Amino acid sequence: MNRKELFKHIQNKKSFLCVGLDTDLSKIPVHLLKEKDPVFEFNKQIIDHTIDYAVAYKPNIAFYEALGPKGWESLQKTLEYIPKDIFTISDAKRGDIGNTSKLYAKAFFEAMNFDSITVAPYMGRDSVLPFLDFENKWVILLALTSNEGSEDFQLIQSNKGEFLFESVLRKSAEWGNPDNLMYVVGATRGENIAKVRALVPDNFFLVPGVGAQGGSLEEVAKYGMNDHCGLLVNSSRGIIYAGKDLDFGKQAERESRILRDEMEKLLEKYL
Amino acid sequence: MNRKELFKHIQNKKSFLCVGLDTDLSKIPVHLLKEKDPVFEFNKQIIDHTIDYAVAYKPNIAFYEALGPKGWESLQKTLEYIPKDIFTISDAKRGDIGNTSKLYAKAFFEAMNFDSITVAPYMGRDSVLPFLDFENKWVILLALTSNEGSEDFQLIQSNKGEFLFESVLRKSAEWGNPDNLMYVVGATRGENIAKVRALVPDNFFLVPGVGAQGGSLEEVAKYGMNDHCGLLVNSSRGIIYAGKDLDFGKQAERESRILRDEMEKLLEKYL
Repeated sequence: MNRKELFKHIQNKKSFLCVGLDTDLSKIPVHLLKEKDPVFEFNKQIIDHTIDYAVAYKPNIAFYEALGPKGWESLQKTLEYIPKDIFTISDAKRGDIGNTSKLYAKAFFEAMNFDSITVAPYMGRDSVLPFLDFENKWVILLALTSNEGSEDFQLIQSNKGEFLFESVLRKSAEWGNPDNLMYVVGATRGENIAKVRALVPDNFFLVPGVGAQGGSLEEVAKYGMNDHCGLLVNSSRGIIYAGKDLDFGKQAERESRILRDEMEKLLEKYL
Repeated sequence: MNRKELFKHIQNKKSFLCVGLDTDLSKIPVHLLKEKDPVFEFNKQIIDHTIDYAVAYKPNIAFYEALGPKGWESLQKTLEYIPKDIFTISDAKRGDIGNTSKLYAKAFFEAMNFDSITVAPYMGRDSVLPFLDFENKWVILLALTSNEGSEDFQLIQSNKGEFLFESVLRKSAEWGNPDNLMYVVGATRGENIAKVRALVPDNFFLVPGVGAQGGSLEEVAKYGMNDHCGLLVNSSRGIIYAGKDLDFGKQAERESRILRDEMEKLLEKYL
């Protein structure tokens, strides 16, 4: 999917919601455990109930990898079930030297046909470039994450006065462009979203940390939105585990509709 | 495996060689392609021929992941084939927020029973700590890698005069200890190995970049060895693709013996 198409879907649905499919066998409703593939069955119902309000789905690969070969099958089936007009994100946080990154890119972009993959920047340009070689596929590079430990290294200031996450933005903007490169920018630091937006005005941000992790959607939109929206805001637990019983799908639908309604207002206000 | 045991194996075999199982269907001898599981068959023969000279094996997970569920089966079979007195490294370069890192840890340490996993530090402490909770299991944290792009961020100097890789060493040494934390330290920068060793005198280093990537084993030993060796030096392509025909096992044996013989001398000289 290219940037124009993504923006069109956002306008049509009046939503920039990404639903995180962090599907955990110990958290899904127990009645699903008797299904042949409980993970896929759960995802299918979540997708059915949220598809009108979401423009993207983001399986965190760890949840599938933890289940071994069976988990990869559930992931593949989930991906095939998601309609083609939805942006798909493999939240894998990969990153290795050139040859190896190319293999990861092939696995996620070709074998599994994801639109995008999250990538860790620590190893530098030759760990990122191989992912940028695929047409209409996207790298979503970790820049400023929303977890506690993000302070440890991302906020180290260089002898030139630049935070590490700023160096990541500045350098990576030379490797890719707003049509193949997005950034992970945590919502827990409102003031920093403005900083990131100033450095990369046209790139999309994938924003985790709204909801369970405590960020404000209003702040994200105020500081982060650009003229083609430029935001995908993720919610995982707050949607997919909103209900624990037979009606978990309806609860997920309700939560995603609430977020979409808020997003609709923010799009009117800031776009 | 604990540190004492690892050192004992190094002394017994007079070797600190790690063989990288970067098994690529487009590079293995063609006669293996008619086997039911060519990847496992290749690994099995490589292991049979190098086991007398190696103390560790390191499958790079990308090569298996690229093959889908079948690849994970080949990986599992390979791991089960490796004798228990060999240190096993899942070269996965994972790293995510706490809950997710815990899932990765379970996948590699419990479901697959690897001794260790390589981890990327960018997300900070809560992405690393969950891996350190497993008894006799190891984190191998990326510190100073041997690829070209390592300069992009790892060599950024902070306003306190510290390179990023030095910040990673200093902070992570507070999270783990020499009994559960190793570091990836590239061999292409001899002078830097001494710097790393000064900061973390007792931790093991996993050293890629000897051989195909061009580092010197003598320099690595001179600057990196400590009183319990403290080194695992990896060679992948130089060993596993030394031969391309029926005799590929014998060629791998020859290459690994040459490295072991050199390591034996270096252990005598610097230990």
